Amino acid sequence: MIGENLVKQIEFIKEIDKIKYIQRRTKLLNSDRNENDAEHSWHLAMMAIVLSEYSDVKIDLLKVVKMVLIHDIVEIDAGDTFLYDQNKNHENTEEELKSAKRIFGILPEKQAAEFIEVWTEFEDGISNEAKFAKSMDRLEPLLQNTSNNGGTWKEFGVKYQTVYDKKIAIKNGSTELWNYAEKLIEDSVEKGILEK
Amino acid sequence: MIGENLVKQIEFIKEIDKIKYIQRRTKLLNSDRNENDAEHSWHLAMMAIVLSEYSDVKIDLLKVVKMVLIHDIVEIDAGDTFLYDQNKNHENTEEELKSAKRIFGILPEKQAAEFIEVWTEFEDGISNEAKFAKSMDRLEPLLQNTSNNGGTWKEFGVKYQTVYDKKIAIKNGSTELWNYAEKLIEDSVEKGILEK
Repeated sequence: MIGENLVKQIEFIKEIDKIKYIQRRTKLLNSDRNENDAEHSWHLAMMAIVLSEYSDVKIDLLKVVKMVLIHDIVEIDAGDTFLYDQNKNHENTEEELKSAKRIFGILPEKQAAEFIEVWTEFEDGISNEAKFAKSMDRLEPLLQNTSNNGGTWKEFGVKYQTVYDKKIAIKNGSTELWNYAEKLIEDSVEKGILEK
Repeated sequence: MIGENLVKQIEFIKEIDKIKYIQRRTKLLNSDRNENDAEHSWHLAMMAIVLSEYSDVKIDLLKVVKMVLIHDIVEIDAGDTFLYDQNKNHENTEEELKSAKRIFGILPEKQAAEFIEVWTEFEDGISNEAKFAKSMDRLEPLLQNTSNNGGTWKEFGVKYQTVYDKKIAIKNGSTELWNYAEKLIEDSVEKGILEK
């Protein structure tokens, strides 16, 4: 006899397989192949584990890892939002919340509530864990674009100030990682792969 | 001035991007598209988080998550080993250890040692965390093959007893998940997608 909760959990585990088909705009390192959301989420989790010592304050690493692993699951229904898309609302949209409720809602009630809470905390970006998780989310595409001769910056005509204004969120999680990121941005201008 | 350790950590973060190109034999759910190691590792981490309550003993979830996130990084050098490949040694091979030392060795010394330790603990499969992590690693392809009309079982002519003998490792991590898995295997025989 299989428990009712386990049936729901397996259904959820199967449902989130779909994240592997959600394409991001950014490409893999030194590559012209788009990254998908599962790969992206895996990489952020690895980055969080490797770089946690650079958080300006003490953080609960397991919570950060949970945040980055689940943060894009809502895109199964809501689709990927490109960071530099000026026509789309980047706040916690109605569509994403609806998606969170449907997908996390497949889980047993108590667990569903926990997942929605972790996802909301990430979206709000206020807690120390959310700030660090968002630093990871901003840093990864910076590594990708600098490895790809400008990548999405060049492809979509995104300029220095826009990049700078988006990436400065890294500072909320880590001064040291922001120093590194800022240098990457400045170097990109010097190399001619980011237009000022 | 960027710290020496951070330079090494970023180099490691870039190096492990290659895991996104390592193809597994198993396909995504209801799909003919092969899964890659990054997607697989993300999925196992999600499974560990969702299913941790079924561990027969108390486990350190963060350690389990670290294990499943890094367990296939060695395949960047050593390549994927198919579970049912009878010509390849499935133990902790020389090749994989060499790969672990090279790739984790990119990290600062202390962190490199920590990662090699976590990876070795997973490979040994003795600790409670390793047992649960390995349960996840055995359960995911079972969900995939049953959703794909037999998947790699049919493709490579793998029969019931071989599947059963490999999958029983799930029992080391969780009695309840093994009960579920065993039922999936028996049902697969009934449905004619696994030959007895």
